[in-house]
Amino acid sequence: MEVGKDDRLILLTNDDGLYAAGLRTLLEVMEEFGKIVLVSTMESQSGMSQALTVKTPLRVKLLEENERRRVYACNGTPTDSIKLAVNQLLDRKPDFVVSGINHGANASVSVLYSGTMAAALEGCLYGICSVGFSLNSFSPTADFAVCKDYIRIVMKNLAAEPLPQGICLNVNIPAVDAGSIKGIMICRQSKGNWKEEFEKRKDPMGKTYYWLTGFFNNHEPEAVDTDEWALANNYVSVVPVTVDMTAHGYIDTLRKRFGK
Amino acid sequence: MEVGKDDRLILLTNDDGLYAAGLRTLLEVMEEFGKIVLVSTMESQSGMSQALTVKTPLRVKLLEENERRRVYACNGTPTDSIKLAVNQLLDRKPDFVVSGINHGANASVSVLYSGTMAAALEGCLYGICSVGFSLNSFSPTADFAVCKDYIRIVMKNLAAEPLPQGICLNVNIPAVDAGSIKGIMICRQSKGNWKEEFEKRKDPMGKTYYWLTGFFNNHEPEAVDTDEWALANNYVSVVPVTVDMTAHGYIDTLRKRFGK
Repeated sequence: MEVGKDDRLILLTNDDGLYAAGLRTLLEVMEEFGKIVLVSTMESQSGMSQALTVKTPLRVKLLEENERRRVYACNGTPTDSIKLAVNQLLDRKPDFVVSGINHGANASVSVLYSGTMAAALEGCLYGICSVGFSLNSFSPTADFAVCKDYIRIVMKNLAAEPLPQGICLNVNIPAVDAGSIKGIMICRQSKGNWKEEFEKRKDPMGKTYYWLTGFFNNHEPEAVDTDEWALANNYVSVVPVTVDMTAHGYIDTLRKRFGK
Repeated sequence: MEVGKDDRLILLTNDDGLYAAGLRTLLEVMEEFGKIVLVSTMESQSGMSQALTVKTPLRVKLLEENERRRVYACNGTPTDSIKLAVNQLLDRKPDFVVSGINHGANASVSVLYSGTMAAALEGCLYGICSVGFSLNSFSPTADFAVCKDYIRIVMKNLAAEPLPQGICLNVNIPAVDAGSIKGIMICRQSKGNWKEEFEKRKDPMGKTYYWLTGFFNNHEPEAVDTDEWALANNYVSVVPVTVDMTAHGYIDTLRKRFGK
């Protein structure tokens, strides 16, 4: 028996805050797939990675409730939002955790810093089929509508068959007009890092402070199977992401190094 | 030519703050290996994962300087500390990033939330040989001295031959007396998650708030090649950790699912 839309419970969050345009677009599409519980923060939480709030208490406020959706504001991180929802706000485990649409790409090593992807990883740790969506644009006027069809394609695929335990999806969508997108490309996380990451300034008291800034350095611009290549070539990148950070291929060598 | 102690530059940090006992023990041992630049925060930053400070400026204060060490306080996360040091405070790339000793284990999926391990991952992203150390005890009177010999063993190994690009080490040390430790075990990250994660309370105004709490649920207590097993059996667990979160083994299946 196919699980119908009315039986599905979908937990949404993001890291750009409750009033972010990307979240509104995601909510609109996800209501085609099931009942929604949305938990997010009033302010943006970009770059929060999988941070937890351990030193201050968390608070949650129900902002909106009807037959199709419940919307909560919380004062924690995206990971806190998922944990609170699963542990305290929901009567049952949701069928999906969906996070985004992030304002800016989360390709390559950005997955490590991303609050959006951390929420998906958190869902994944609870054994829930989870996915994070991001649009490759930091423009304040970015148009998230181009994401809609690709969110539908991904969610229909996941609704037909969930992901295996411990794996979630990192979906990045090029910020071009819909007609220019060449389709979905399954790929791997590109190797890279960030460079020249601080701007040094003086405050009015003459004291030094720093702003985080910098640019991304792709270590393998020639590789054609990476998320960076996909985005640069107008493909929607889909990377399966694992919660297992073990470098399995290095275990044997490490055993030899330590004489084990 | 072997690189001597006097030529080595070692960047230290932690997520328990500058006055944490674990950091002091780490500093003491690491001074045997080279010159130290220590950058950390005044307050603890536990559970900060690889969070970045993007909305407020960062400040750094030089607290101590002599021929063997420089100590800075910074107002950011462990990841900010590493980024700031590499980009602004150091004249050259350090030979090692060493983080810890964390007060509490960072085995299994705790690697995803750990500020200690995030700092090691950050060093790794800069192409620096990096390692995080943690002691498996939350006791306020935990004795970090038991870690010293194992830190020496690991650092001598890394000094002889650095790790490959993109891989760092997650080292967890049992909190037992030195004679009870059976040695080092190279292992993989155990599968698990956290359960019953919140305590619900009422404040004096009658409003609900939540404290993060919960306990770890090991999904594979029988497996003998995991960090959880190693710690439970009085071994020092050493897990090679990769910055590549791609589930490589699932790419082909995902391509079939999406008809690519």
